[in-house]
Amino acid sequence: MKTSFVLFGATGDLSRKKLLPALARTRGVDSVIALGRRKLTTQGYISLMAAEGLPKSFLAKLKYVVHSLDKPLPNLGAGNMVVYLATPPGLFDRLTTLLQECGCLGSRGWKRIVYEKPFGYDLKSATELNRCIRKAFSEDQIYRIDHYLGKELVQSIIAFRFANSLLSEIWNTKHVESVQVELSEKGGVGKRAGYYEESGALRDMVQNHIMQLTSLVAMENPGALDAESIRKAKAAALGRMRIRRARFGQYTGGEIDNKLVLSYEDEVGRTSSTETFAELQAEIMTKRWKGVPFFLRTGKRMAGQFSEINLVLRDISCGMFCQKAMHPKPNRVTIRISPEEGLTLHLNAKVPGKGYLIRPVALEFCHACQFGPNTPDAYQMLISQVIAGDQTLFASWNEVAASWKAVLPCLGHKRLFYYRAGSSPGRYF
Amino acid sequence: MKTSFVLFGATGDLSRKKLLPALARTRGVDSVIALGRRKLTTQGYISLMAAEGLPKSFLAKLKYVVHSLDKPLPNLGAGNMVVYLATPPGLFDRLTTLLQECGCLGSRGWKRIVYEKPFGYDLKSATELNRCIRKAFSEDQIYRIDHYLGKELVQSIIAFRFANSLLSEIWNTKHVESVQVELSEKGGVGKRAGYYEESGALRDMVQNHIMQLTSLVAMENPGALDAESIRKAKAAALGRMRIRRARFGQYTGGEIDNKLVLSYEDEVGRTSSTETFAELQAEIMTKRWKGVPFFLRTGKRMAGQFSEINLVLRDISCGMFCQKAMHPKPNRVTIRISPEEGLTLHLNAKVPGKGYLIRPVALEFCHACQFGPNTPDAYQMLISQVIAGDQTLFASWNEVAASWKAVLPCLGHKRLFYYRAGSSPGRYF
Repeated sequence: MKTSFVLFGATGDLSRKKLLPALARTRGVDSVIALGRRKLTTQGYISLMAAEGLPKSFLAKLKYVVHSLDKPLPNLGAGNMVVYLATPPGLFDRLTTLLQECGCLGSRGWKRIVYEKPFGYDLKSATELNRCIRKAFSEDQIYRIDHYLGKELVQSIIAFRFANSLLSEIWNTKHVESVQVELSEKGGVGKRAGYYEESGALRDMVQNHIMQLTSLVAMENPGALDAESIRKAKAAALGRMRIRRARFGQYTGGEIDNKLVLSYEDEVGRTSSTETFAELQAEIMTKRWKGVPFFLRTGKRMAGQFSEINLVLRDISCGMFCQKAMHPKPNRVTIRISPEEGLTLHLNAKVPGKGYLIRPVALEFCHACQFGPNTPDAYQMLISQVIAGDQTLFASWNEVAASWKAVLPCLGHKRLFYYRAGSSPGRYF
Repeated sequence: MKTSFVLFGATGDLSRKKLLPALARTRGVDSVIALGRRKLTTQGYISLMAAEGLPKSFLAKLKYVVHSLDKPLPNLGAGNMVVYLATPPGLFDRLTTLLQECGCLGSRGWKRIVYEKPFGYDLKSATELNRCIRKAFSEDQIYRIDHYLGKELVQSIIAFRFANSLLSEIWNTKHVESVQVELSEKGGVGKRAGYYEESGALRDMVQNHIMQLTSLVAMENPGALDAESIRKAKAAALGRMRIRRARFGQYTGGEIDNKLVLSYEDEVGRTSSTETFAELQAEIMTKRWKGVPFFLRTGKRMAGQFSEINLVLRDISCGMFCQKAMHPKPNRVTIRISPEEGLTLHLNAKVPGKGYLIRPVALEFCHACQFGPNTPDAYQMLISQVIAGDQTLFASWNEVAASWKAVLPCLGHKRLFYYRAGSSPGRYF
């Protein structure tokens, strides 16, 4: 049976820059139906996309359909179908209703629907959206995208944790002093000012990406590697999360890479109480993690551009080694998601020479060095999993709901502190 | 007060190649009294040593004295004195007696005596030698050399073990499946045939170097970093060692680095039952190690030239990852002593792409990369410690006695297997 890929928001940045290039490298799709408001012919659309460097063989699969929300959907054909909503989230429920009404979901072949983030604006709106979706689709047809889950090193967390006795053993409150999940960006809001003003760092990064990373670090052993087991374990961990403290910031003007940059308010052109930095101190109320602070941290216009997870281990070096005016650091496990994917263990070693002077050293596993740089990008990975019908790398409703529930107490935050663009408001190790 | 270095066996290989070059780089020695049987003037000796590339400022400190064992010792002067016996071990007791009789030990200043290995031929002879020595010196004056203890990575073992929660946690029977201490040599007996025929691998390598390495891996936390605490902990571990199995081999002719090499018997020029390979399976009868096999392995004419310690961890990866026809390896901690000093952790990582295919990866800490290559060599380290009066890096009598006791059941071994030069008789991971 033929498989078609139905793309809403086909002329948007995400479609042009990420989805279509990823789709072009993915096997298993016979035709692409691209829908958008812009008045284009299929040939016009193909010309636009050719400028993105897509191969001819792929361009030949494209068909463009002009569509506006106040009209019913055209005939989308039959057979297997991936429907991908790369549209603003405000359109999700309307488009879902149109899909339900068009009758095409009843045709032969499987139907799967992909929602881009954000999934809702808070717990209430997410619940309403989910209710609307579930009228048209069952949970096993729904793929809620979090592109972080497509990143290789994020998927690797499960392997690191459960295929290594060395790491498995210390992955608990007895040995871990704190967990730090940090997504740090140098960029400002740029073109996304309209969206970001409504969203802020908490909704843009914490509720989805950071919560997903945290769930993989915090979850219990899922017992099996199938989607159901893993998503259940993740949702359970998120369900036990409590926020203990939170702080929020917004950047003022400053300097990044020797270039002056505007303040957030200058970028969006108005006074604003939107947070561009958020740090939550969470606790996972399980036997494994009780008492261990999880610091969930993200910001724009930070000093560095990176995504990483750190487990800072409880320090034992002071038993013998602190007596002699030495300053060993606690051991630390770093999972680097970007820019350079890898795993680093920070240990202490003896400095050569007499006595026992101790210095921290790093043991590195560089992902690209070991496996080569040509790993599929996140969107390619995720799209191929939708086609394969594997939901492992997508957030279940229970996960999304638990994430919203966890951040709920923070959504009404009021106070902001201000940080200079290019500075970093503190790390804990 | 001036410090003199009294060197017996001053014209031997060890003195020429190792001791004098190390001594030349060591501070704190004002004069060197070199004793030997060869009839040389001081000037003649200095000319000999100048050929070894020793600096003039050091050569000026040398004084050569012809000495034979049937005569009393000449006046060695007063002040602080290191006496170093770089002679065949058969002369240790005679020289000790001469030192006692010469009266120089009673002069002002500290006196310290250094014995090269081997210390005794078995427990009985070692005990007799020690008794003779103790008539002239107290235990805190006696420095029993094991040059392995001067190696930087050997000293690092204590820091690795007790300054890192990540390693400390798994350093026990709950997490370690086996410990492997292996000193592998490509060379044959060469010029040392006479000595080696009497000694064999067990006395030449196992009773001293391998036992010392093993004691550092096996000992309990010494609680403090002073010589007494560390040596006590090491001796205690050796005292709890029991040999469970042993096998011994001798090399036949073969090929190493594409060169044909002789069999052991051809090298020594006679039929021989001396072992050039020894492997002991030991157990340390402590709570920490009960049930964990320690494989102590050494050989000449092996396939590789290296000294390393491996802790193979119990495998947990089969929980989820073996079901899918994957073959992760157990985690492993490697302490490389030579040729390239460092610490390697062998973990499992996910292979990029769909699913959870697992592959072993190595996280390396290269000692020279981090600290630079210019670490003092073993003899320089050890000599400077003798001058400083620090016994940490020397084997106490209790350690030597416990080592001999441990290998006692193997000393009368009979059966040999034969291995081709350049082959390796098996490893366990």
